[in-house]
Amino acid sequence: MLNVRQPFVNPELSSPSPVLTDMHVVIIGMGLMGASLGYDLRGHVRRVTGVVRRAEAIPTTRTSGCVDDVTTDAHAAVAEADLVVLATPVRTILRQIAELGPRMKPGAVLIDMGSTKTAICRAMADLPPYVQALGGHPMCGKEAAGLAAAEPGLYRGCTFVLCPLPRTSPQAQNLILSLIHHLQAHPLVLDPEQHDRLVAAISHLPYLTATSLVAHVMAVAEADPRVWEVAASGFRDTSRVAASDVRMMLDILFTNRDAVLNAVDDYLARLAALRQALATGDEHLLKQQLASIAHTRRNWQKNRQTH
Amino acid sequence: MLNVRQPFVNPELSSPSPVLTDMHVVIIGMGLMGASLGYDLRGHVRRVTGVVRRAEAIPTTRTSGCVDDVTTDAHAAVAEADLVVLATPVRTILRQIAELGPRMKPGAVLIDMGSTKTAICRAMADLPPYVQALGGHPMCGKEAAGLAAAEPGLYRGCTFVLCPLPRTSPQAQNLILSLIHHLQAHPLVLDPEQHDRLVAAISHLPYLTATSLVAHVMAVAEADPRVWEVAASGFRDTSRVAASDVRMMLDILFTNRDAVLNAVDDYLARLAALRQALATGDEHLLKQQLASIAHTRRNWQKNRQTH
Repeated sequence: MLNVRQPFVNPELSSPSPVLTDMHVVIIGMGLMGASLGYDLRGHVRRVTGVVRRAEAIPTTRTSGCVDDVTTDAHAAVAEADLVVLATPVRTILRQIAELGPRMKPGAVLIDMGSTKTAICRAMADLPPYVQALGGHPMCGKEAAGLAAAEPGLYRGCTFVLCPLPRTSPQAQNLILSLIHHLQAHPLVLDPEQHDRLVAAISHLPYLTATSLVAHVMAVAEADPRVWEVAASGFRDTSRVAASDVRMMLDILFTNRDAVLNAVDDYLARLAALRQALATGDEHLLKQQLASIAHTRRNWQKNRQTH
Repeated sequence: MLNVRQPFVNPELSSPSPVLTDMHVVIIGMGLMGASLGYDLRGHVRRVTGVVRRAEAIPTTRTSGCVDDVTTDAHAAVAEADLVVLATPVRTILRQIAELGPRMKPGAVLIDMGSTKTAICRAMADLPPYVQALGGHPMCGKEAAGLAAAEPGLYRGCTFVLCPLPRTSPQAQNLILSLIHHLQAHPLVLDPEQHDRLVAAISHLPYLTATSLVAHVMAVAEADPRVWEVAASGFRDTSRVAASDVRMMLDILFTNRDAVLNAVDDYLARLAALRQALATGDEHLLKQQLASIAHTRRNWQKNRQTH
């Protein structure tokens, strides 16, 4: 009877990470996200194995200290894993779910850290029923990519979105909740389509607004390169994400195309409306809108800081 | 003979601030910029007088420590000043140039710190010939406004744009160069129209892109307020300047309207082109453009850090 009841009392939720400590965790992809996760898990789980694509990456990955061992043999590694974390670009994740998922042990858990979730959760739903899979998206990162940019504590304080499949077991979800607890991140369960709509607004659209801004300044610089000298903190922050890894961003844009296009269209209309108010000299309207926007942005920042 | 020659050997350039130390400096406007300037100058010049609009602001300004004395009587203050600094919103500066400039002592120097320069330099050109005036724009700041946000060292490391009039004397220019040297900022002389074109690209356009982004997220939040929870560092940085002081920004937008509208139009076309490449699935084109933009943005950051 005890075994049958276990899932319903959720013992994992009552202590920090009771199951996690026994896990052999295999992280596929030793970039910013994968290696940072390795730093936080190594020594707190049974074993952390890193999987890299190229053999040349093995020595630096090993000496970085973010894994217990490192290999290029993803097939062998996932066959031994209790938990597999896919930390590669989204379209690579899509291929890896189909390629690696079926090679996992029955009951082992598969999660990804990709920035879009609909296509990924669909691919996960096609896996054999003995694989426990769910989509994940830690809302953190920086424009620098790669192992060299990885650091312990990257996930601390961030929102970690979870998209369980209808069939994902409570045990698998609790294991991932323990992982998120260990990382000192905040779990947030979202439906994959909902996730993709929301991140189109606050992440994928900002990438395109930042790149368009840099493209404009590049055009201005052709006539007058001094523009780079006067660019200060406003330009720096507004354009920061334009330096993001292009391959990663292309995967995101193309796996969330409809939501991104909708967001861009709404944004273009809003900017055009502000432009129109300025062009026609409707200062009253412009002031009203800008004041409401400034108020909202300040409140968001304030609420964020108090959390 | 000595007196006649003095301006040509520029003695001010050979020592940090030989003349500045003797100055009675009057700062009009005790907001972020004016009060921060006061902190950096007080004790290093003969006297710093702050001018505030409302009598209620006198006690906090006095106790803040950024001035030697504070008054609401701008007329009396500027009549005694060797250097007057206008640190108010741009359209207030335009009024104050006409109102206060003629009340200054012959040979006293007038500079402003407004974010647009064409209209201001035109207003300065209308002053009586005995006033030495020039436009200034320190390229720093933050979205927080007011005396409470002011701090010593705000100007350190920033580019300080100067727009001398054709009639501005070398002595007046050298006094301001001494001031910039004292603030540990970097002087950059620009023609007012050139300044306004460049800052439209790197400052005024980014303000409108940030506000449009927040406006889009506000619309998304009406249907799903969780969007504020998933918003992370990408949104934070891309939208930061949307929290800027609205009155200050309206003055900037309306005194640089043509350049801002041109910048917005070019930007809208560039974003629409990226959108089109995504919509039609032209990944090759999109990749090429995003890679060039990311490369340029990374180089700018790198060059900035090494300066």
